[in-house]
Amino acid sequence: MGKTLAQKIFESHVVDKPFGEAWVLKLDRVFCHEITTPVAINDLVSRGMDTVFDPDKIKAVIDHVTPAKDSKTAEQGRVIRKWAERHAIKDFFDIGKNGVCHAIFPEKGFVRPGFTVIMGDSHTCTHGAFGAFAAGVGTTDLEVGILKGVCAFQYPGTIRFELDGKFPCGVTPKDAILSIIKMIGVNGATNKVMEFAGSAIDSMSMEGRMTMCNMAIEAGGTSGVCMPDAVTVDYLWKFIGPEGEGVYRTKEEALADFKKWHSDPDAQYDAVHKIDVSTLSPVATFGFKPDQVKTIKELAGTKVDQVYIGSCTNGRIEDLRQAAAVLKAKSVAPGVRGIVSPATPAVYQQAMEEGIIKIFMDAGFCVTNPTCGACLGMSNGVLADGEVCASTTNRNFFGRMGKGGTVHLMSPASAAATAIAGSICEA
Amino acid sequence: MGKTLAQKIFESHVVDKPFGEAWVLKLDRVFCHEITTPVAINDLVSRGMDTVFDPDKIKAVIDHVTPAKDSKTAEQGRVIRKWAERHAIKDFFDIGKNGVCHAIFPEKGFVRPGFTVIMGDSHTCTHGAFGAFAAGVGTTDLEVGILKGVCAFQYPGTIRFELDGKFPCGVTPKDAILSIIKMIGVNGATNKVMEFAGSAIDSMSMEGRMTMCNMAIEAGGTSGVCMPDAVTVDYLWKFIGPEGEGVYRTKEEALADFKKWHSDPDAQYDAVHKIDVSTLSPVATFGFKPDQVKTIKELAGTKVDQVYIGSCTNGRIEDLRQAAAVLKAKSVAPGVRGIVSPATPAVYQQAMEEGIIKIFMDAGFCVTNPTCGACLGMSNGVLADGEVCASTTNRNFFGRMGKGGTVHLMSPASAAATAIAGSICEA
Repeated sequence: MGKTLAQKIFESHVVDKPFGEAWVLKLDRVFCHEITTPVAINDLVSRGMDTVFDPDKIKAVIDHVTPAKDSKTAEQGRVIRKWAERHAIKDFFDIGKNGVCHAIFPEKGFVRPGFTVIMGDSHTCTHGAFGAFAAGVGTTDLEVGILKGVCAFQYPGTIRFELDGKFPCGVTPKDAILSIIKMIGVNGATNKVMEFAGSAIDSMSMEGRMTMCNMAIEAGGTSGVCMPDAVTVDYLWKFIGPEGEGVYRTKEEALADFKKWHSDPDAQYDAVHKIDVSTLSPVATFGFKPDQVKTIKELAGTKVDQVYIGSCTNGRIEDLRQAAAVLKAKSVAPGVRGIVSPATPAVYQQAMEEGIIKIFMDAGFCVTNPTCGACLGMSNGVLADGEVCASTTNRNFFGRMGKGGTVHLMSPASAAATAIAGSICEA
Repeated sequence: MGKTLAQKIFESHVVDKPFGEAWVLKLDRVFCHEITTPVAINDLVSRGMDTVFDPDKIKAVIDHVTPAKDSKTAEQGRVIRKWAERHAIKDFFDIGKNGVCHAIFPEKGFVRPGFTVIMGDSHTCTHGAFGAFAAGVGTTDLEVGILKGVCAFQYPGTIRFELDGKFPCGVTPKDAILSIIKMIGVNGATNKVMEFAGSAIDSMSMEGRMTMCNMAIEAGGTSGVCMPDAVTVDYLWKFIGPEGEGVYRTKEEALADFKKWHSDPDAQYDAVHKIDVSTLSPVATFGFKPDQVKTIKELAGTKVDQVYIGSCTNGRIEDLRQAAAVLKAKSVAPGVRGIVSPATPAVYQQAMEEGIIKIFMDAGFCVTNPTCGACLGMSNGVLADGEVCASTTNRNFFGRMGKGGTVHLMSPASAAATAIAGSICEA
């Protein structure tokens, strides 16, 4: 019987099957940020177990609240900084060099097809866009991962989403994933891997694929995954080609090798959904669950106080380009605050070079340094009680971006159009 | 008997002398920000006194913690936003259009020679650089100012500082004012106006004069003041000339009129200090009081964890240019965090155009949105306990930038050199 991509990764990484469906996997990457990792570090230190399995496989960043907003976040930063120093974790991205984990780690070439990745962050599923199995974990799993380089997972069933057709003008990967979550519900993929395939994925950039995989967790999915293909090879080439580590001599060679991580044609799926993306519309969430989705047209006119563009979902260069195309020579509506957080320093510099930062500023947007920012309601744009925000982020839970605040998730293009109109509006 | 500039402003603005030395002055400007003004607003509302004396003379901004970092600061923002809306205060600078109050208000042409200005902010003295009397006040005075457009002050004695000579290469207005504070001590000008004059001031930019006046309060001064001259006229011309309000037809006319705000040759001073700026060196503070000042050479080698460039003291374009000149093609030392906060959106855009933002980013600096930021230890670079920061700000009180943190105040050029070296270093 054929296997899915995720199952192939499991079979190639298993080191133990201690009980039932629990497979202990060897980890290729343990990613860390300053909110969840210091909890693990402090616990390991207090137990006299302050070691790491492999400093080269651990990558760390300060991204959630940066620069530090108070003594607590300053201390969290210090804990992870000193830990990285102590264990010679050379890929630690401190303030000034830092960006959103799920944007900067791919950008640095840290994720490869077939990899197993964990992180104490629910949107770790993003990295599945490279054909990896990437999952968010809790403190205990993170501690074991740091110490031993292993993590236990349930053997994964996979739900396949076949996206074909051509995206209508103004419809983006964010609209696709929101539409999928609406279709299957917030528990629709619980404990499953969400596999995105089809011609619409084949022709999608890595940025778009990351947006799709990023929100797998919002339907309960353990990881999103896409098959590694020529787009993946192109993205990774500077790292895997002769100019980088020299893993492959030619792109064709890489492409051929990556095929081993493709799901088999006879793989068994828990479900297969076929979606014609040409039928999709720009959408946004309403209410407080990511599966509460309506078309922008249905929500049009809903007043907003703030528009936030950024995050691990939609803070990449492609996202900023889409928003800037809408914002160009326009202004944020009176009474509306626009905030944009480019996801990484490289995204910021690229956007600056392309004149995108200037477009945002001329429109009246506040351009923050790279950070997770307002997404998690801990800095850079927290909502006041009763306020409404149009946001390119991934969670519309009640109060997520500030106690008593409401969030409408949408694409960067829709968010930009909403900023100009002052109420939810199609680009 | 002749009068000083400050005394002339008092005499021209007095509306009452209710007792002793207390003069009640008519106010030309009441400036507001989101940390201290909401306290006044909420109190006025609770007393049923929610009115303002003149919405055109009140200017407001969100600058201290922006964008909001938590529910409390989000609510503070909302209080001032709704108040500005309610009272048709049209010059309210919300998130995206906002910058450090003492940088953005001058930039918008809100301060003029001979004006009286109050604000619930100790560094309001900055605006004296335009030949105004500008003072920080507490909540009660701010409330009265908002309601009635008046404020009571003690009739001012003035200490005159005559700065002559040419600044040596690498010595800046920040070094001059730190040297002056060292000379007279943190109580040296308590309840006095600090008047800066002489050829070294005449040839100083408005940015430099603002840096000087900004720190008057650190020696206890009520306001710093400089005589309005051709430099002042040039800075204000787009507001006061025919392209602006048309107050003056020619610069000569403005210059002649501004002379009425010059101290008389026979004015009486509490003290006169003559300083030859050619004898000054780059300096920095040590310890926890702004008068604890040594030369950078004496402090050289002192390790730092963070370098902060920004604030109402040194976040203007001239400051960023000075820092960038030092940073160009260099990198922040390993283990040191560099943070720069351009003071206003205009400063940011100018710096972007000149390639300064890129220089900072290439050097590894985090470039934040315009904000007071780390200066007050409430956002964007709070120090952890025991950390040391080289900073272009104005207060080195223990814990000012984070509980248990130490701050060395210095010029942007010295801060940039320190960032590269990782320890206090001359540019």
